[in-house]
Amino acid sequence: MAMTGVLRPGHAQLRVLDLEVSRKFYRDVIGLVETGTDAQGRVYFKGWDERDHNSIVLRQADTAGIDFVGFKVLDAATLDKLERNVREFGISTARIPAGDMLETGERVRFQLPTGHQFELYAYKKHVGNGLGQLNPPPWGSDADRGMAPTRFDHCLLYGPDIAANKKLFTEVLGFYLVERVIGPKEAGEPEMAIFMSCSNKTHDIAFVEHPEPGKLHHVSLRMSSWERVQRASDIMGMNKVAIDIGPTRHGVTRGETVYAWDPSGNRFETFAGGYEPYPDYEPITWTFDQFGHGLDFPNGKLHESFLTIVT
Amino acid sequence: MAMTGVLRPGHAQLRVLDLEVSRKFYRDVIGLVETGTDAQGRVYFKGWDERDHNSIVLRQADTAGIDFVGFKVLDAATLDKLERNVREFGISTARIPAGDMLETGERVRFQLPTGHQFELYAYKKHVGNGLGQLNPPPWGSDADRGMAPTRFDHCLLYGPDIAANKKLFTEVLGFYLVERVIGPKEAGEPEMAIFMSCSNKTHDIAFVEHPEPGKLHHVSLRMSSWERVQRASDIMGMNKVAIDIGPTRHGVTRGETVYAWDPSGNRFETFAGGYEPYPDYEPITWTFDQFGHGLDFPNGKLHESFLTIVT
Amino acid sequence: MAMTGVLRPGHAQLRVLDLEVSRKFYRDVIGLVETGTDAQGRVYFKGWDERDHNSIVLRQADTAGIDFVGFKVLDAATLDKLERNVREFGISTARIPAGDMLETGERVRFQLPTGHQFELYAYKKHVGNGLGQLNPPPWGSDADRGMAPTRFDHCLLYGPDIAANKKLFTEVLGFYLVERVIGPKEAGEPEMAIFMSCSNKTHDIAFVEHPEPGKLHHVSLRMSSWERVQRASDIMGMNKVAIDIGPTRHGVTRGETVYAWDPSGNRFETFAGGYEPYPDYEPITWTFDQFGHGLDFPNGKLHESFLTIVT
Amino acid sequence: MAMTGVLRPGHAQLRVLDLEVSRKFYRDVIGLVETGTDAQGRVYFKGWDERDHNSIVLRQADTAGIDFVGFKVLDAATLDKLERNVREFGISTARIPAGDMLETGERVRFQLPTGHQFELYAYKKHVGNGLGQLNPPPWGSDADRGMAPTRFDHCLLYGPDIAANKKLFTEVLGFYLVERVIGPKEAGEPEMAIFMSCSNKTHDIAFVEHPEPGKLHHVSLRMSSWERVQRASDIMGMNKVAIDIGPTRHGVTRGETVYAWDPSGNRFETFAGGYEPYPDYEPITWTFDQFGHGLDFPNGKLHESFLTIVT
Repeated sequence: MAMTGVLRPGHAQLRVLDLEVSRKFYRDVIGLVETGTDAQGRVYFKGWDERDHNSIVLRQADTAGIDFVGFKVLDAATLDKLERNVREFGISTARIPAGDMLETGERVRFQLPTGHQFELYAYKKHVGNGLGQLNPPPWGSDADRGMAPTRFDHCLLYGPDIAANKKLFTEVLGFYLVERVIGPKEAGEPEMAIFMSCSNKTHDIAFVEHPEPGKLHHVSLRMSSWERVQRASDIMGMNKVAIDIGPTRHGVTRGETVYAWDPSGNRFETFAGGYEPYPDYEPITWTFDQFGHGLDFPNGKLHESFLTIVT
Repeated sequence: MAMTGVLRPGHAQLRVLDLEVSRKFYRDVIGLVETGTDAQGRVYFKGWDERDHNSIVLRQADTAGIDFVGFKVLDAATLDKLERNVREFGISTARIPAGDMLETGERVRFQLPTGHQFELYAYKKHVGNGLGQLNPPPWGSDADRGMAPTRFDHCLLYGPDIAANKKLFTEVLGFYLVERVIGPKEAGEPEMAIFMSCSNKTHDIAFVEHPEPGKLHHVSLRMSSWERVQRASDIMGMNKVAIDIGPTRHGVTRGETVYAWDPSGNRFETFAGGYEPYPDYEPITWTFDQFGHGLDFPNGKLHESFLTIVT
Repeated sequence: MAMTGVLRPGHAQLRVLDLEVSRKFYRDVIGLVETGTDAQGRVYFKGWDERDHNSIVLRQADTAGIDFVGFKVLDAATLDKLERNVREFGISTARIPAGDMLETGERVRFQLPTGHQFELYAYKKHVGNGLGQLNPPPWGSDADRGMAPTRFDHCLLYGPDIAANKKLFTEVLGFYLVERVIGPKEAGEPEMAIFMSCSNKTHDIAFVEHPEPGKLHHVSLRMSSWERVQRASDIMGMNKVAIDIGPTRHGVTRGETVYAWDPSGNRFETFAGGYEPYPDYEPITWTFDQFGHGLDFPNGKLHESFLTIVT
Repeated sequence: MAMTGVLRPGHAQLRVLDLEVSRKFYRDVIGLVETGTDAQGRVYFKGWDERDHNSIVLRQADTAGIDFVGFKVLDAATLDKLERNVREFGISTARIPAGDMLETGERVRFQLPTGHQFELYAYKKHVGNGLGQLNPPPWGSDADRGMAPTRFDHCLLYGPDIAANKKLFTEVLGFYLVERVIGPKEAGEPEMAIFMSCSNKTHDIAFVEHPEPGKLHHVSLRMSSWERVQRASDIMGMNKVAIDIGPTRHGVTRGETVYAWDPSGNRFETFAGGYEPYPDYEPITWTFDQFGHGLDFPNGKLHESFLTIVT
């Protein structure tokens, strides 16, 4: 297989303060497809074009944030192999039994150096995107319900020691560095942010150096065009959704974006565009003095809230 | 590496009937970036967002068509391994020395069951996309010159025994089947067309069953949006470029497309959109009676010229 | 008033062969808003962004075609004045009482030299576009139902003696010629098609020279972008709506277009783009030999069905 | 004529602090077409799709701002009539001889109640948009040079007593009110901003109540799509042009917009979208508490700089 090992961001479990309010928000405003509720009361969603049973999972809690993020791997043998490799790297792992999450197989969970719970799994039930596998139309009615993201695209996580995360993701998990932001010259230009891919996407996961471990900056949801990013931003305006930044274009990854907050204060992104990187590409570097353009290319502006608020 | 083995379509050498006419067409009308001419007189081009030295190569000849298509693999060890695997599969291979193509390393060449010359290589000089690796803008002046495709995306080749090609690409070269078209029920629904990927793209290469070996249906060039596909079609109109189909949307791959002919009669596509498949996805099937929508989703029409003209 | 006299295309009454089939088609597939049914059984629709009660009216009949098209004028005094002017021009007029059409005032009807029934009226009830006049959002749920045209934009009518129509519209009704198509040199380059505006739109009405009087070529419905034209074409594919041409761009008016047939064989257009002409602009002329580009700019192709089929 | 009286915003003369710097900016970054320099040293530009000789004129001065804005009227008789009407309204007028501005006829100038110099004129040389009047392509090379606005669309001016301006424009000059913003309830909801049209455009001129007379908020330049607004914003980022707001969508007029500053501190807008109003439409009202959405629909945010900085 040319695509092997870790395939894609598969699920993220978010903590929300009021489950019913959040369920309505993720279903009716964001426009994810609700696919189930489990015995623990967690609510499961997927983007309309995802074929697996779930990707965004909401759990009622006292604080907002992310419980864990999970990536789909090619198969069970890959899962075993990657588990061994993670352990050899010096990180202990645990197996969570199949069925703990709806329609999801056994998961290998471990803690990243940045303090985040990270998972790998080889099975999640294919339920399809609702268009069928035979002569499918390009989209269906779910593509017009709410912002209607196609999929869970990536997440950006904040925590300490992203250098160790980078080593783990690039040397053990098969990711490659696509872009990075470095600190000021006088500080020796340390890597402050890293955007890594296990595919042709500009990022499957990203990390920012931050003293507090295990924090969520945002979960990103994929839109199919700049016009659909606008449509998402219109829906935010209609529903008085608090926007952090956008619509605008990132310099980093060239992505077209709006960042906003869910009712619990978790930031999410509606994201389109970008380019198609490959593992043999030399990473792109953004210097500290130009990071304003990296974040918001037209404005060239550092947004205080974007840089400091995490859950 | 999660992306390993065969990475991407890297180059295609096209035969053209008048090199100077074609050079002007590919440079000024299509808007590729000319990167060199070699001792044999071949002219080299790249899409503006490609980082390698070349992707589309023109050779003066008496007949139009494709000489060969080459894919970049991860590294030299991968090249050696894939060469062994191809030989074990029963296909003989030859090494073409580094430097035969400008800025390109040694190539492993072999003939596909469909009669096409196919190549793998591990090295082509990274010349960058002209935007630099440090704080790059999202695009530059080459993005507005002619149709300005970002890259060589894929090609569709016609020849006999695509079943053997499918076996080779999926079992040896690490591709997976994304979509397929099957023949009429009364003929037993044989696979008539297969669209395969070695990445997240809906196709990196595709084949159609056809009695004559080694034929080219089209070389596809990537556009960044439906509005840019329109812009390409406007430029076709301005330059009286003969269009085969489009602008329209494919049912197959959901791509947004225009097909047209270069001055030698080689068909090319300007292509945007599509979705992001993965190797664990079940392939999509188009039945013979609905292939009109597979080809031209809005019109649901089989275009005679599209189905029959190859070079 | 800078805009005075005739303001806009206000309504068109179409003959359909099966009212219930057509009602479903115009409401659910095209996505017009149904606003009422009158005592005669006629069904009334409007585009979601129109503020008047109705624009497209369907009448059950044995043959397809257009009964009449009506334009809104500024006020009652304008209606009286234009009626006098039309009579002075030598065309007899009739008054149709208020209430004959739902929520519509008295109409002045007369027959155009091309044989079409044409109407002027000063009153149609303002029902609004559903978004309100106070702090309205840019769009609402009707904008995602079916193709969801914003409005009735114009119609193209076929009949004899368009020179007389041109005289009437430009000298009496206050329209100006925006573009025209002329016949072959050997025929003396007669005007074969005329596109006229009473506003900043590239056309509010258009005529093509044709031996048979009173024929409909198409009714045009406005889309807000090229991406929305694509969306309309996708919906045509999903619903197996027969397409005549497109999606493509016109040379004439620069419009972005798809032409398709309703279930009765009446052609309609979903149309975006164009430019903003003014009455002091010199008209643009398309010569017969280049009309292929005028019709379908990228393809430069005369489509037989487009040129010959009318209802 | 259905369109009569005042036709369109024709020209605006801006004061700039460094003529050469500004010339380069308006020509190479904004991408207007330079059409001449007069004996006074003023530099003339037009948008690529305008057919008249000039629209934006730059004059070297010690302070930024707008000298005057001029509207094209239908013909000389209209000019005379409107001049009489303005005088009858109680405003004195002056005639500026033909030739004072390049390729422009006699102008009738008067001072608006808000302190702005306003002009009407009946003649400006038609130079065409470079595409010709015979079989023109939809766009040419000027459409890709810089931001490449199609035209001067409108301007927003700040000054005292906009109620008097409204009376003048609606009762004498034939404009109609399209949208308005009203002040807080406790202040009696006075009109704070008025957007008026003499056409189908959402605004041809707009005013905001402001104590200081004769101030410029922005000159607006038309873009053909939201994707072209993005392109303009990318070019701003590339050229470190200071952006005030955007890209975003207005609630007022539904326009798609970026506001930025020229090198002298004059604000300009690159603007697409909007709807097609008519003089018989009831105006839309934005209340003070919702004006955040009126200004920036997605964000619902009042931008301090937008509300306070004028030149």
